[in-house]
Amino acid sequence: MRDAYHEELDSIGDGLVEMARLVGSAIGRATTAILDADLKLAEHVIEGDQKVDQLQHDLEALAIALLARQQPVATDLRIVVTSLRMSADLERSGDLAQHVAKLARLRYPERAVPSDLHATILEMGQLAQRLMAKAAEVIITKDVDLALQLEQDDDEMDLLHRTLFQHLMDDRWKHGIETAVDVTLLGRYYERYADHAVSVAKRVVYLVTGEHADEIQPDVQPDIQAGVQAVPGTDA
Amino acid sequence: MRDAYHEELDSIGDGLVEMARLVGSAIGRATTAILDADLKLAEHVIEGDQKVDQLQHDLEALAIALLARQQPVATDLRIVVTSLRMSADLERSGDLAQHVAKLARLRYPERAVPSDLHATILEMGQLAQRLMAKAAEVIITKDVDLALQLEQDDDEMDLLHRTLFQHLMDDRWKHGIETAVDVTLLGRYYERYADHAVSVAKRVVYLVTGEHADEIQPDVQPDIQAGVQAVPGTDA
Repeated sequence: MRDAYHEELDSIGDGLVEMARLVGSAIGRATTAILDADLKLAEHVIEGDQKVDQLQHDLEALAIALLARQQPVATDLRIVVTSLRMSADLERSGDLAQHVAKLARLRYPERAVPSDLHATILEMGQLAQRLMAKAAEVIITKDVDLALQLEQDDDEMDLLHRTLFQHLMDDRWKHGIETAVDVTLLGRYYERYADHAVSVAKRVVYLVTGEHADEIQPDVQPDIQAGVQAVPGTDA
Repeated sequence: MRDAYHEELDSIGDGLVEMARLVGSAIGRATTAILDADLKLAEHVIEGDQKVDQLQHDLEALAIALLARQQPVATDLRIVVTSLRMSADLERSGDLAQHVAKLARLRYPERAVPSDLHATILEMGQLAQRLMAKAAEVIITKDVDLALQLEQDDDEMDLLHRTLFQHLMDDRWKHGIETAVDVTLLGRYYERYADHAVSVAKRVVYLVTGEHADEIQPDVQPDIQAGVQAVPGTDA
């Protein structure tokens, strides 16, 4: 049987998985809400973020109590400190899903996404949700190979983001400025969401291997623009 | 004389102040670079972010070593854990300054900001820098009143952000989609930068008072859009 101490450590892990599931579901629903102009679903995502915030609070309180009471060292200390960071990533992902939902609500009853971008946004939303599902699996299994896969999936998100910019910068863009602004922000939300999911997975790699898989979150938006506008298809 | 333990705690504080100074300078320089289309200055900011990342790494290593070795409890434990979060805020602020600089570099030799938005972007850049300078002062003085002031300053940033959106959504906008995308992203970078500065100050409030001054970072961009497009001047 596990002792109380390790049970607490486990429950931190459980909390992280629960957060990842909630924010994974949130980005899926938010994407549906914005594509279908579904106000009710959007409201649901917006309100649901409170639960994520509450989970983060509880998890932090638990982590700090555990640090104070159990004074973990070595691996256990790393687990607790890294969990704090992962919970921050997940909380932020929830915010980003909420932003997508808020945009859906703001434009209701109109659709924020023009029909020629529907497929791209759908793909970004699905990919974001898949990335978070994998991140949750990485938390559970501590599978380093799976964690490293997330970085490749993130390349796919960059490609989709690039596609979005290609549409925006196309001379034939006919949806006006407001939609351009909305699409720019949407692209940014999905891209950041994906970064946070990758970041969670990287932190698990750090826990398992003790090596930082490049701690700094990649955030390459301006370079994506460069890729589109300077030499298409190349990473500036 | 301070003992070695408290000297280490102090040096964490010093590291945070140093980070705040660097990212404060970075956002000032990045703003100049984008307004003047100054490639050299932009490059300087982009490269300078490595120093911020390095400081964050060092600071985290120090904090974790201190947790393991000294096993702080109560207030000291809170200081160390909160410092980890502040360093994450500051590192992210540095990234955002770097994004502004990258946009300057991407558009060089053109200017990314049209002349009728020059004053607004200048104000956003100056305000961001002031917010960070105050955040650094709050870290040093632990002045709760000053920390709460930052929230009011942040309202000013929201106003500027709203002004930016008003320009974008104005039917007379004549700068095309590419500039609209750039300005949308710039607005987001400054707004997020300000949020992180406010967040740093709030975390000091938590350290001093033990109370969360609302842990969740406000991030109200979609509502700012709503304010512009629905009923001007009201917060949706």
